[in-house]
Amino acid sequence: MTQAPREIWLVGIGTGSPSHITLEGVNALRAAALILVPRKGTGKDDLAEIRHRIIAECGSQARILHFDYPERDPALPYQERVERWHDEIAHRWQSTIAGAKIDGPVALLVWGDPSLYDSTLRIAARLRPEPRVRVVPGITAIQALTAAHKIPLNTVNGSVHVTTGRRLRTLGMPANETSVVVMLDGLCSFQELDPVELHIWWGAYLGSEKQILIEGPLDEVRKGIVQTRTEARARHGWIMDCYLLRRV
Amino acid sequence: MTQAPREIWLVGIGTGSPSHITLEGVNALRAAALILVPRKGTGKDDLAEIRHRIIAECGSQARILHFDYPERDPALPYQERVERWHDEIAHRWQSTIAGAKIDGPVALLVWGDPSLYDSTLRIAARLRPEPRVRVVPGITAIQALTAAHKIPLNTVNGSVHVTTGRRLRTLGMPANETSVVVMLDGLCSFQELDPVELHIWWGAYLGSEKQILIEGPLDEVRKGIVQTRTEARARHGWIMDCYLLRRV
Repeated sequence: MTQAPREIWLVGIGTGSPSHITLEGVNALRAAALILVPRKGTGKDDLAEIRHRIIAECGSQARILHFDYPERDPALPYQERVERWHDEIAHRWQSTIAGAKIDGPVALLVWGDPSLYDSTLRIAARLRPEPRVRVVPGITAIQALTAAHKIPLNTVNGSVHVTTGRRLRTLGMPANETSVVVMLDGLCSFQELDPVELHIWWGAYLGSEKQILIEGPLDEVRKGIVQTRTEARARHGWIMDCYLLRRV
Repeated sequence: MTQAPREIWLVGIGTGSPSHITLEGVNALRAAALILVPRKGTGKDDLAEIRHRIIAECGSQARILHFDYPERDPALPYQERVERWHDEIAHRWQSTIAGAKIDGPVALLVWGDPSLYDSTLRIAARLRPEPRVRVVPGITAIQALTAAHKIPLNTVNGSVHVTTGRRLRTLGMPANETSVVVMLDGLCSFQELDPVELHIWWGAYLGSEKQILIEGPLDEVRKGIVQTRTEARARHGWIMDCYLLRRV
């Protein structure tokens, strides 16, 4: 493998609004020598464009280089598929960085926050020799969702459960949980739940001009959410959404 | 009650670093006509000071007014005590705002994010007539914790459980949960858990110059955390901390 950078900065940029970035994030992008921007393929150009807007609005003079996301191998089992995919992304980072012959910190703009359902930290851990990693926290889709709906995430002294669509389909609505956030749910798994006494707050393109919000008793609004989601995805070519379920 | 503002903006400011504020937060503080800053009593002046630093660094020209936090009545049961306390804070907001005779948006700087273990939304809901509420998301202590430790919050496709010290003491470590974040735990309730196969990432004063981090197997580091926490609290007069427990 080619030489890794000495410092890699993972900068959380929030979820769709360039103004979600923190002052710490702005300063990091300004101080970086090189910024790596992924190209995720057709239909997701919006996302690369938001990254470019953020870099420009921060007044960063860093060199910008792109890398293409590899395809995941559908023939592999889930865990191994993810592992091989991360290996390949790390390899592409190293090649791109080595080609740039730059000695300063390398930054990546991470959608949401680098800690939450994001692979960037796991990919950075594959670089050799190991660079010094810096994480700049960012607004997660969860905060963007509750801010847009103007609701608390937790009930008073209540707990909050954060899960994925995949887990919700396999395990159902977690028992004894009042507040459940579901992320990465391309299949609208809420449709399969018993909707009795469940309220949903759903949001897509959170923080952006495209933002769509729907909330109500699950049995009343679930069909509308599925329909709205299908139409919006067709119109924009991509969608990112999440939701909060609360037992009421 | 006196007149309520027409618009009230709850601006998440993150957890201790003035640079945790987002560009949206900066813009909101600049556009506000009045900013309400709480005084929480001796020893917590640091917190008021951070708010003043943020307001100054944003270049906000808004008028700043202070209000004192009321005491909670220890004779009342928990829920009622909290309810009466929120009523009284709402009353103090209204009196303070009415005294200012200002017609524009009123902003409050909310530690962390307004959605997570924070009362500000519930207090704002008590204002009459009901103002238009705007929520500006902020970095939570959870993101500040994972960023400082440079770790993901969730395991791959894993869920995350967020709870309070009070609940952890009552209910114990949640069964079947791999990743558990504990907040509002002044009593170091992790001491009472069976530490076998538990790893802890603990942090206090996250994001600030005072930041302290400890991580390791729970049985090896728990005593050190309790001691460090006690000493730091005595030295600074206050402490805010949280931690992630992971089954390994």
